[in-house]
Amino acid sequence: MEKIRVGVIGATSLTAQVLLQLLIRHHHVEIRILTSESRTGEKAAHYYKFLEGKFSGVFKEYAEKEILEETDVVFLAKQHGEFLVRTITLFNQAKKKNKNFKIIDLSADFRLKNPKDYEKWYGFKHPEKALLKKSVYGLPELYRKKIKQASLIANPGCYPTTVILGVAPFLFHHTVDPRTIIVDAYSGTSGAGVRPNERNMAISTMENILPYKIGSHQHTPEMEQELSAVGEKPVTITFVPHVAPFRFGMLANIYLKPFKPLMAEKGVELLKNFYRNEPFVRVLDPGEYPEIRNVVGINWCEIGYTYDPRTNTGIVLSVIDNMVKGASGQAIQNMNILFGWEETNGLF
Amino acid sequence: MEKIRVGVIGATSLTAQVLLQLLIRHHHVEIRILTSESRTGEKAAHYYKFLEGKFSGVFKEYAEKEILEETDVVFLAKQHGEFLVRTITLFNQAKKKNKNFKIIDLSADFRLKNPKDYEKWYGFKHPEKALLKKSVYGLPELYRKKIKQASLIANPGCYPTTVILGVAPFLFHHTVDPRTIIVDAYSGTSGAGVRPNERNMAISTMENILPYKIGSHQHTPEMEQELSAVGEKPVTITFVPHVAPFRFGMLANIYLKPFKPLMAEKGVELLKNFYRNEPFVRVLDPGEYPEIRNVVGINWCEIGYTYDPRTNTGIVLSVIDNMVKGASGQAIQNMNILFGWEETNGLF
Amino acid sequence: MEKIRVGVIGATSLTAQVLLQLLIRHHHVEIRILTSESRTGEKAAHYYKFLEGKFSGVFKEYAEKEILEETDVVFLAKQHGEFLVRTITLFNQAKKKNKNFKIIDLSADFRLKNPKDYEKWYGFKHPEKALLKKSVYGLPELYRKKIKQASLIANPGCYPTTVILGVAPFLFHHTVDPRTIIVDAYSGTSGAGVRPNERNMAISTMENILPYKIGSHQHTPEMEQELSAVGEKPVTITFVPHVAPFRFGMLANIYLKPFKPLMAEKGVELLKNFYRNEPFVRVLDPGEYPEIRNVVGINWCEIGYTYDPRTNTGIVLSVIDNMVKGASGQAIQNMNILFGWEETNGLF
Amino acid sequence: MEKIRVGVIGATSLTAQVLLQLLIRHHHVEIRILTSESRTGEKAAHYYKFLEGKFSGVFKEYAEKEILEETDVVFLAKQHGEFLVRTITLFNQAKKKNKNFKIIDLSADFRLKNPKDYEKWYGFKHPEKALLKKSVYGLPELYRKKIKQASLIANPGCYPTTVILGVAPFLFHHTVDPRTIIVDAYSGTSGAGVRPNERNMAISTMENILPYKIGSHQHTPEMEQELSAVGEKPVTITFVPHVAPFRFGMLANIYLKPFKPLMAEKGVELLKNFYRNEPFVRVLDPGEYPEIRNVVGINWCEIGYTYDPRTNTGIVLSVIDNMVKGASGQAIQNMNILFGWEETNGLF
Repeated sequence: MEKIRVGVIGATSLTAQVLLQLLIRHHHVEIRILTSESRTGEKAAHYYKFLEGKFSGVFKEYAEKEILEETDVVFLAKQHGEFLVRTITLFNQAKKKNKNFKIIDLSADFRLKNPKDYEKWYGFKHPEKALLKKSVYGLPELYRKKIKQASLIANPGCYPTTVILGVAPFLFHHTVDPRTIIVDAYSGTSGAGVRPNERNMAISTMENILPYKIGSHQHTPEMEQELSAVGEKPVTITFVPHVAPFRFGMLANIYLKPFKPLMAEKGVELLKNFYRNEPFVRVLDPGEYPEIRNVVGINWCEIGYTYDPRTNTGIVLSVIDNMVKGASGQAIQNMNILFGWEETNGLF
Repeated sequence: MEKIRVGVIGATSLTAQVLLQLLIRHHHVEIRILTSESRTGEKAAHYYKFLEGKFSGVFKEYAEKEILEETDVVFLAKQHGEFLVRTITLFNQAKKKNKNFKIIDLSADFRLKNPKDYEKWYGFKHPEKALLKKSVYGLPELYRKKIKQASLIANPGCYPTTVILGVAPFLFHHTVDPRTIIVDAYSGTSGAGVRPNERNMAISTMENILPYKIGSHQHTPEMEQELSAVGEKPVTITFVPHVAPFRFGMLANIYLKPFKPLMAEKGVELLKNFYRNEPFVRVLDPGEYPEIRNVVGINWCEIGYTYDPRTNTGIVLSVIDNMVKGASGQAIQNMNILFGWEETNGLF
Repeated sequence: MEKIRVGVIGATSLTAQVLLQLLIRHHHVEIRILTSESRTGEKAAHYYKFLEGKFSGVFKEYAEKEILEETDVVFLAKQHGEFLVRTITLFNQAKKKNKNFKIIDLSADFRLKNPKDYEKWYGFKHPEKALLKKSVYGLPELYRKKIKQASLIANPGCYPTTVILGVAPFLFHHTVDPRTIIVDAYSGTSGAGVRPNERNMAISTMENILPYKIGSHQHTPEMEQELSAVGEKPVTITFVPHVAPFRFGMLANIYLKPFKPLMAEKGVELLKNFYRNEPFVRVLDPGEYPEIRNVVGINWCEIGYTYDPRTNTGIVLSVIDNMVKGASGQAIQNMNILFGWEETNGLF
Repeated sequence: MEKIRVGVIGATSLTAQVLLQLLIRHHHVEIRILTSESRTGEKAAHYYKFLEGKFSGVFKEYAEKEILEETDVVFLAKQHGEFLVRTITLFNQAKKKNKNFKIIDLSADFRLKNPKDYEKWYGFKHPEKALLKKSVYGLPELYRKKIKQASLIANPGCYPTTVILGVAPFLFHHTVDPRTIIVDAYSGTSGAGVRPNERNMAISTMENILPYKIGSHQHTPEMEQELSAVGEKPVTITFVPHVAPFRFGMLANIYLKPFKPLMAEKGVELLKNFYRNEPFVRVLDPGEYPEIRNVVGINWCEIGYTYDPRTNTGIVLSVIDNMVKGASGQAIQNMNILFGWEETNGLF
């Protein structure tokens, strides 16, 4: 079986860990280079036991030339801003050498089309407006065709994946008001990564719920950008994220104002039609609610819809595994599209 | 020190357990009668180790005459509907005998003023409209004076306590629209009691969030009734409850539409003024968010407010321990008021 | 690809659920019959969402004739004793018809060779001594060859799998005293199944550890039987099981008395040699300790060994996923052996 | 009511937090000085909401003179070694000034009598052998009389408290072999403090059990020292600690070899006699097992004993709240003894 050569930059992050756990099951993939600044020189299979027998190399320092020569695709698993400049150089060098080289960036560095949003929500100035345009937002359910042609994939954030998949069908059909969307969302502690903070310490997350960044979370412009594009009207979202006491998974409760009453049956029908050919979106029947435990470890998004006629409120519940469909699973789904394989390869 | 004699009906429920754990620390209380149908005859201190040295009796069958003769106050800790008829008889017998006897009912049987609400939300016909009027809704922050005079206290539900305390000040001052309130709420598994069901089994609650009864939870009319009274305008609430993976505690995220922009500072000021003399309500400063871990085990309600100017949405976060301020702690607070003691007695 | 036809008896148990989640990924398997007494007639894919597109049938009542005609192998996922008589009839009917039919029994009904042990530890009289001899204990690491020839596999219990794999190499080489083995073990709540009890309710398992059946757990004779066979000397085990606050996984801390000092390096070497060709046993290097999170969801047993020279105590730590290597994953491993496939099929 | 003036050194540690939560309920205590290096100048009630209305001061830098003038007792809540030199100076200065000043040190700095044990188990050289002798090991159940006379209390560690209370009665009566004690123990994540590490991060503790420091934990010599003293024979312990997925609480499973068979009834009787006047030790009846949830938040140690006649093994289970009876609650119990108050003051 033909295999492509894969590199992972920032291979000791939690995202990279889940990515590697998925990659070793993928029949078309050969892991070639893993980079890590903090563990350079350490045998990767020592750090990740599950790599034993699958990858015998050590964590390396990042070396652009090596990446370009030795791999066909790299996954970038660094925090936003950390690798941005190098990504630009890498992209340009690949183009210059006329290589069919693919970059799947799991950070937020190329997700937003408007550079000003980086200043406002991320606090840094984005140096490369041109590349923001060339990159493709890697949500296959919306951009499958564009992804196929792209060289640089901006892999979506976890909250945006959960929310966009839940709301897009309603905005696409102009059935709900784009200006009054409320998102009340819950992430597992894995969303806070491995660098210690309030949101990933046991003492502050167990037997607790931790609200944070209300109205100011950096995933807000990403959701608004994509949902505005889908509905062709500016979308504004009240976004209230929390950390809840589980490790993996994400739930978004989304409150919508339909222009006309939209009963559960109708809303579910609309969702099922929109996603009828999607391998990774599962729309529940009326009266059924999504649960995180149904999607943990797999690349599914499970969506339910119900309606409260007393207040004319449409309620969408959308769940994913924040590390799978919300990060690494989706990255592999994008890779499958980029290389023309069955989209579910390595994901079941 | 003078002591009153206390009875607990349904003493093996989870609510009763927390109640007893609090009662044994209360200096004015002598536990006299505990009833239990499932454990009649068993030594109470055998079932509840913490009763050793505090109460040497056995669980008894309910006997009205004994209750009236041997106790000054009973706490009813049965499920709604289970004890309703007996409560009515007990109340009437006490009146007939001209006794200064107090009933604190932790069930929902006397919370709703409109008997039709029992048919609609609880599925049973309430037999005693008159007593619904005489009973007082036991939320001290709103009804302290009435509680003082009452013989039958309808102790509030956990969700209503959390939500009413969070929203009442805004409706009282008519600053928010009473028809568009959204409540997205999370209960610990203890809220589902001890009879096994999806919402209190480990396998369905750990590493999961379980939405349930969306738009149809029986606490909805209770919140709407009380908030309508506070704001003197009909209130409608979109109520979306969930079970989250902790045992004790409750969080309500409440979304309000202010008539005019209501910045965090102003909203917090309004809350702080409303609750300035309350021993059990703690309003956080702007930028601070309530957390369940701050209130577990104690009779506090912690409230925070923030505002999203992009969408004109006021966001109230309110947390309690569902078993303390949401049930048994509040019952003791009511008892303290009924007997003229310091309201914080036995509650810190 | 050639496929075998599979039936699952008792398909709504937790064990069956995990089994089905694994079976749908197995390329050689076609699910043909699922039986359930409690949900007869319900569409299986309605109860188990993950069966959508994989199995379109309903849960049926058990019918021996249908099983024999329509399937090549059945997995029995009932509680011990519940299906024992029917298993015997099924086995005999298959023999009578000269069918190459396989039974993999996940209950304890054929694990013990001495019928008296059923009376003593399980409280029932075993009706079929002959079949106890014909059945093969399905621990591939010890009985791979016998399993290949068997028609009835007694799939091991979770505790025995964890403990036998951890201790067998030491007894095989006669390096430790067979009479002073102490096993201090921890199961996730899934081990207590789905019928409600103290050990699977959230209120009694979260933020707690629950010791139970100390010295009297029914898995004790199973461990002793198999370890006695390995070491060719009677083994006695002090077995102290607990439920710990996680859903999936199992840890055994095993205390051994070596006849001569057995330093960590030597003990690890002995383990590594014993398991050098095993695809599902991973022996850690000296100084490394097994962790449940490394094995959850996969068919691994992870084993570590260390030695306390101050007390001449060898300490083995062994972890598995109680529902995978401890039940359903091992059952599939056995199926792979029975049908001559690669042992890892469907398990990575 | 007369009050003593209290200081807490290192007031932002987790231990100090629990200590302060208990101190504010104590009627004989006035909190006077809180020191913190990391938060000097911050209002204490801002950091700890529960101090509102109880303590209006700020966190200060440590100043010996101020401590000696302004307080009657200080609790030291620093990590071992951090405050050792200053403790010695503080003690000597108090003596010099002839003050009746009390130090309750929650660190390990004065628990071990043999200075060499500090080198071996803690990795530092202890500078003050003399003071090691003058300090009293603050386990009231063993040293109540000495504590009464002491100026410097070495407050016991959490594991030693759990284990010593469970084993002491058996060694005191010489019923078990002092050389073959095995302790298999579980701590909540709070035991790992608030400085981030593997043992207090959510991702490594939830749905997991984390063995650590097997045979090398620094609490080992503390247990051995005290149990050797009780039994007047050298005690050696195989100690295997773990972190389990809860926040507060500790369980020790202790395996003993009785010289003669010691049935459950006899062992329980021995324990009950030993602790018959102890307010904080609860010995369970035969057949009952201790559970962490019974002691969380309170100053109890719950102990059970059972016996496995098949292997002549006595099994003691002992549970405490690691932060209460295992640290801050015990410190308050010691304070109560030092100042001649009822031992349970502020602890119920």
